[in-house]
Amino acid sequence: MDDEQPTVTLKAIGIVRNEIKELPEVGYPWQEIVSEIVVDTSLTEALDGLEDFSHIIVLYWTHLAATGELPPKIHPRGNPKLPLVGRFATRSPNRPNRIAKTTVRLLRRQDNILRVEGLDALDGSPVIDIKPYLPGYDSVADARVPQWITD
Amino acid sequence: MDDEQPTVTLKAIGIVRNEIKELPEVGYPWQEIVSEIVVDTSLTEALDGLEDFSHIIVLYWTHLAATGELPPKIHPRGNPKLPLVGRFATRSPNRPNRIAKTTVRLLRRQDNILRVEGLDALDGSPVIDIKPYLPGYDSVADARVPQWITD
Repeated sequence: MDDEQPTVTLKAIGIVRNEIKELPEVGYPWQEIVSEIVVDTSLTEALDGLEDFSHIIVLYWTHLAATGELPPKIHPRGNPKLPLVGRFATRSPNRPNRIAKTTVRLLRRQDNILRVEGLDALDGSPVIDIKPYLPGYDSVADARVPQWITD
Repeated sequence: MDDEQPTVTLKAIGIVRNEIKELPEVGYPWQEIVSEIVVDTSLTEALDGLEDFSHIIVLYWTHLAATGELPPKIHPRGNPKLPLVGRFATRSPNRPNRIAKTTVRLLRRQDNILRVEGLDALDGSPVIDIKPYLPGYDSVADARVPQWITD
């Protein structure tokens, strides 16, 4: 396989608004953070019915994450006590395509604005997609993870 | 808010290989389908350690999905008996940014090739990102969905 991979261009559908202006320390309590996702007004109607779901999946662009050549392996969470693993074995925002996927609680939808809890995105992050969270499809009952995840 | 949303360009990190050459009917048993994700060889080392996870999240480009102007509301799964809801309240591949997110079982990793079960992607789909599935972070214990999801 050569390196000629196809490219795709995405246009943001909205933007994250919250109080988090710069990347906080590892272990920051994102679960408590309330954000607003301000969706482009041209797409307001496409949100209809989303308010019937308690949780949604947000794909967003980690626009302040590292760019350029990335070492293939890292210590998860920047912790040198954790094993050196491949970047794709982690959730580091510094990855070839800087897209993050977070499941959040939908507190309220008002027109084109989604108020959510637990979004680990910085203020100003472009939002790429919003999907309803579907138990069963999006969750796994018997998932296994390596020891370092809980270390 | 005006319509001047930022754009981002992604380069695929790999490609899906399986026997599904065209979109099957609604209700197709994707859960049984085994696919290979052929990752760009320049990124092989970045997969190290992924084999310690039983499940991974695949973000891929639904390259054959509809483009152009999309009606904001649709009947989920193309079923006219289901309510007309906003496109973002569904998992339709036809959406402003055609990125799908699927959690799959990782059967085997061999160098740059990931053998997975349950990936609902057509052969040739460009893969955008691969992430480890993290119980708790990616799953929700008490999620609520509208009635039409199970109808």
